Amino acid sequence: MRFFQKRLRLPALAEGFHLITDLLVAELPELEGLRVGTAHFLLQHTSASLFITENADPTVRRDFQQYFRRLAPDSAPYFEHTSEGPDDMSAHLKAALLGASVTVPISEGRLLLGTWQGLCLGEHRRHGGRRWVVATLLGE
Amino acid sequence: MRFFQKRLRLPALAEGFHLITDLLVAELPELEGLRVGTAHFLLQHTSASLFITENADPTVRRDFQQYFRRLAPDSAPYFEHTSEGPDDMSAHLKAALLGASVTVPISEGRLLLGTWQGLCLGEHRRHGGRRWVVATLLGE
Amino acid sequence: MRFFQKRLRLPALAEGFHLITDLLVAELPELEGLRVGTAHFLLQHTSASLFITENADPTVRRDFQQYFRRLAPDSAPYFEHTSEGPDDMSAHLKAALLGASVTVPISEGRLLLGTWQGLCLGEHRRHGGRRWVVATLLGE
Repeated sequence: MRFFQKRLRLPALAEGFHLITDLLVAELPELEGLRVGTAHFLLQHTSASLFITENADPTVRRDFQQYFRRLAPDSAPYFEHTSEGPDDMSAHLKAALLGASVTVPISEGRLLLGTWQGLCLGEHRRHGGRRWVVATLLGE
Repeated sequence: MRFFQKRLRLPALAEGFHLITDLLVAELPELEGLRVGTAHFLLQHTSASLFITENADPTVRRDFQQYFRRLAPDSAPYFEHTSEGPDDMSAHLKAALLGASVTVPISEGRLLLGTWQGLCLGEHRRHGGRRWVVATLLGE
Repeated sequence: MRFFQKRLRLPALAEGFHLITDLLVAELPELEGLRVGTAHFLLQHTSASLFITENADPTVRRDFQQYFRRLAPDSAPYFEHTSEGPDDMSAHLKAALLGASVTVPISEGRLLLGTWQGLCLGEHRRHGGRRWVVATLLGE
């Protein structure tokens, strides 16, 4: 049994929701050698999210964007934290609601997600830039 | 130290919130042999949730259902993802808000949850059918 | 590779959001000996949250409190679970939305959080009292 840990840099993504399973797996060739284990991913930011959602229909991810814009609107009148722009505090709220960290089981060299599950990056800033993910694989 | 991994099929559950700790533990006799470790559970679906909540009073789970119906209503006028029924997009949103994956510490052969904590399955579809959970135990 | 598990008792905290990274790390000197691994934290309660958020500006945490008071208000007219006080059911909802459990990668003896990330305790009760956290470190 062994750990493998790597810090991965994502490309800059537009505000919205993006499937990144393939992108992450491509950076982790060590996955293939693991018969059983767990893969942990931590997005090292507090204004974007990493979570699991539907991996097939792009309308799901567009609806997520519309929904979360309404659930945590920019520039709520009571916000005190306004110095970093109108989309900053709302981004922190969306990030906390959706989470920044996911654990996925590993089986026979691959992530054992459900057929319709994918790892999704929610970019909540207009100009979030390139984000960092720490991947920690443990397996045998 | 060793991994034990099993894919479990839940019974079909009605729309709403259901405690499933006992059901999961009953399928995992390997737990008893572990003095210390972690148990990871992944629900392999994107229209139901697996999370931790209060394990005693059924009114808590009924209030969850009422609350989440309001927080992520079916058939919001701006939804584009409508082809799979009025409860599908709302189910994806509830699933993302509550999460599909939980890690619980193991101590002396049992899940080390708090006294009032239970593992809860949120079934967000009217006819979700039987759901799959991957349990990955690691311990010694 | 070895597990280290400890049950930690937090001081009683006021309703609101509190950074507790330093407090947790101070109780875990075993962290320093781990070159690579994972740290799992479970808050053993269902009316408070443990999650990752911004670690620098106190206005972020005040805005969280205002936002979540609105998102899951006390005493919603349809709540059935009212016997434990007006802030109890709303606390269970906030706890489920933000989560009670976090896994953080370990690297070179410390938690590998992002520069602006901290572990945050959301106390959702007016008088929550002292809360328990189970820390489970695994590493080598």
